[in-house]
Amino acid sequence: MFQPFEYREGVLYCEGVELSKIADHAATPCYVYSARAILDRFHSYDQGLFGIPHRVCYAVKANSNLSLLNMLAQAGAGFDIVSGGELHRVLKAGGDPGKVVFSGVGKTREEIDSALQLGIHSFNCESEAEIALISSLASRLGKTASIALRVNPDVDAATHPYISTGLKEHKFGIDIAEVEGVYQRAAALPGISLDGVSCHIGSQLLDPAPLLEAATKMLALVGRLRAKGIAIKELDLGGGLGVPYHAGDPRPDVDTFLRKIRQLVDGHNLFLMFEPGRSVVAEAGALVSRVLYRKKNGEKEFVIIDASMTELIRPALYEAHHEILPLRKSKFGTVVANIVGPVCESGDFLAENREVANVLPGDLIAIMTAGAYGFAMASNYNSRVRPCEILVEGDTWRVIRQRETLDDLIRGEEL
Amino acid sequence: MFQPFEYREGVLYCEGVELSKIADHAATPCYVYSARAILDRFHSYDQGLFGIPHRVCYAVKANSNLSLLNMLAQAGAGFDIVSGGELHRVLKAGGDPGKVVFSGVGKTREEIDSALQLGIHSFNCESEAEIALISSLASRLGKTASIALRVNPDVDAATHPYISTGLKEHKFGIDIAEVEGVYQRAAALPGISLDGVSCHIGSQLLDPAPLLEAATKMLALVGRLRAKGIAIKELDLGGGLGVPYHAGDPRPDVDTFLRKIRQLVDGHNLFLMFEPGRSVVAEAGALVSRVLYRKKNGEKEFVIIDASMTELIRPALYEAHHEILPLRKSKFGTVVANIVGPVCESGDFLAENREVANVLPGDLIAIMTAGAYGFAMASNYNSRVRPCEILVEGDTWRVIRQRETLDDLIRGEEL
Repeated sequence: MFQPFEYREGVLYCEGVELSKIADHAATPCYVYSARAILDRFHSYDQGLFGIPHRVCYAVKANSNLSLLNMLAQAGAGFDIVSGGELHRVLKAGGDPGKVVFSGVGKTREEIDSALQLGIHSFNCESEAEIALISSLASRLGKTASIALRVNPDVDAATHPYISTGLKEHKFGIDIAEVEGVYQRAAALPGISLDGVSCHIGSQLLDPAPLLEAATKMLALVGRLRAKGIAIKELDLGGGLGVPYHAGDPRPDVDTFLRKIRQLVDGHNLFLMFEPGRSVVAEAGALVSRVLYRKKNGEKEFVIIDASMTELIRPALYEAHHEILPLRKSKFGTVVANIVGPVCESGDFLAENREVANVLPGDLIAIMTAGAYGFAMASNYNSRVRPCEILVEGDTWRVIRQRETLDDLIRGEEL
Repeated sequence: MFQPFEYREGVLYCEGVELSKIADHAATPCYVYSARAILDRFHSYDQGLFGIPHRVCYAVKANSNLSLLNMLAQAGAGFDIVSGGELHRVLKAGGDPGKVVFSGVGKTREEIDSALQLGIHSFNCESEAEIALISSLASRLGKTASIALRVNPDVDAATHPYISTGLKEHKFGIDIAEVEGVYQRAAALPGISLDGVSCHIGSQLLDPAPLLEAATKMLALVGRLRAKGIAIKELDLGGGLGVPYHAGDPRPDVDTFLRKIRQLVDGHNLFLMFEPGRSVVAEAGALVSRVLYRKKNGEKEFVIIDASMTELIRPALYEAHHEILPLRKSKFGTVVANIVGPVCESGDFLAENREVANVLPGDLIAIMTAGAYGFAMASNYNSRVRPCEILVEGDTWRVIRQRETLDDLIRGEEL
């Protein structure tokens, strides 16, 4: 697996570009992504399924920058979307609507209508009410919507509660114990074709065992549905493979995982779909930031940087861990500190009680594994402009999203 | 205290406007604010300090919409800002930079420079390194910056850890035990005038006792500093008074609180400043949303609405409680449900296991007490457009921020 960030003679590079050169030109904070790492991880899915009918639908919510979507579209990716905004992005990025799967518990009438008119591949439906709505909207347009029901296989993904989605008490999907009845009732509805089954049990799974357990349950379900005359053709196993946020975490091996999946699905005559997001882009990205101040309150050391919870909310929201590296290794040893941003609340931290390089004001650091759910969740809290995004390809780099301006903050506001 | 939202014959109004009329015209989700409630609460501070030299500096971070800032500027408010973006907003809203106080632990060189050139009232400084930077930048511009040191009085605000800021282990301020030395060292620096002391111990305090304790400590500090020849003229006691998020919560009485403050400061010859944010705008705002679907997973009821954690992240981030009211009372009783949005994670909830009106798809609800840290913390996660904001004045209403468009989502991105 290609590692996009590495030290060369004590200096941190992304592919062939020294990160500090980017920071000096583009200013900080900025997100930096490695094109090669993203394609590498996409291909590990796509090639792991070589020879069997399949589509890898990148989960746009993880990072929806147009340039990344364009790159993935060119590599043959489909797209897993969860809103009309994401569909708009896929189209603007040159993606094929015919390779789009629409997921999510709260699709609006307008979103469904627009997806039907654009001819997306299929809808992953989360409730009977949604199936009825799609049926009526498709009928009115004289179309047939391809449908998969999102099944809740009641498998414990053993991840953060906010990103675990496959248990009965979650809002997602339809209980596997009840879904056959739903399929049978839906079979009577016009305007829809019950082509698939889908599931997605959660995110950031370092152990693929729950995914294999879910796949096994889903295959059994396919058998039962077919026996009842529902001609299931597609199996969408969602996403969920994790990435090593901690330096010592294991990295789930996509190849090994997909080999096991192939054994399971062999002979079932199914078009297979996966919806990886985090595992495609997380490790490809870093948030580069400059140290503004050092201060000590009592016994506590603080490193105040120019990035904050507005650029990366994962530490505050999920107590997430991100490794923090200096852009230039120094001889000044390490310090145990809280790495915090300028935002006016104690929840604004990037790391707590962390042993980090003993950086000084003006020094640059990289917050690692920030390619997924980083910029995508950014806000303008404290009236901070959102950072620029940069794509590195080999020895070159370019801005793929401009830093916002102060006037962007007030767009749409009228006195 | 004026209550902006009330039922009239079972229909929810904001001032003189039926909320459902706004929702039908402006679509949902939308934020609705009552002008009168905001001015009412601002005046309770301003009039509570009548007759003594003072300024009420509204904390812009709570809600920075230009129309609200303009209204407060016209009412005589100063502004407490924490970024260059907020300063930009104050100027665009017609605010007077001479009434601006600049707080925050991570002021950048560019932000300080611009604030100096615009002639803001003063800086609340959070570290010795920051004082040195302001001194050098002001000297270079031939200006004298008015400075208050933000003191950490080590008072426990007993609020959510993320918004408690007055303890020694927080990133904010300078320890009260060390601050006299910092003042004495700073007195030797050029380009700054040590005019004030400031503190801010946290947010959402329903009991003002910790604020009074902090004020007492600060007054004693002023005495000690003056005895050492530091001519302190201003005392900034920050913000922090809470609002009743739960129907049964007490509402701290601003009048009573300020009477006690007046007794404390009497005879101290100080210009007094307060920085209220939440207590000015929170109760003035509601997030109006439409029910998309109802569903049941196992025993669990879900009400899926068109608002989500992208409009209001407080429940997910702080486990915050917001009352949820139907726009029209019905005879269908109540249901215990999770109120969730369309965003694809289990953390996307507005309420959990809550007894709410038994609403159906198409019905409208209001998420109450959402005027502070609502829109200000909104994001485009899941490529959702940010909602519109609406200001009600008596019997009229108008859009004060347009709903974002799909093209707003991709602004600044280039292929």
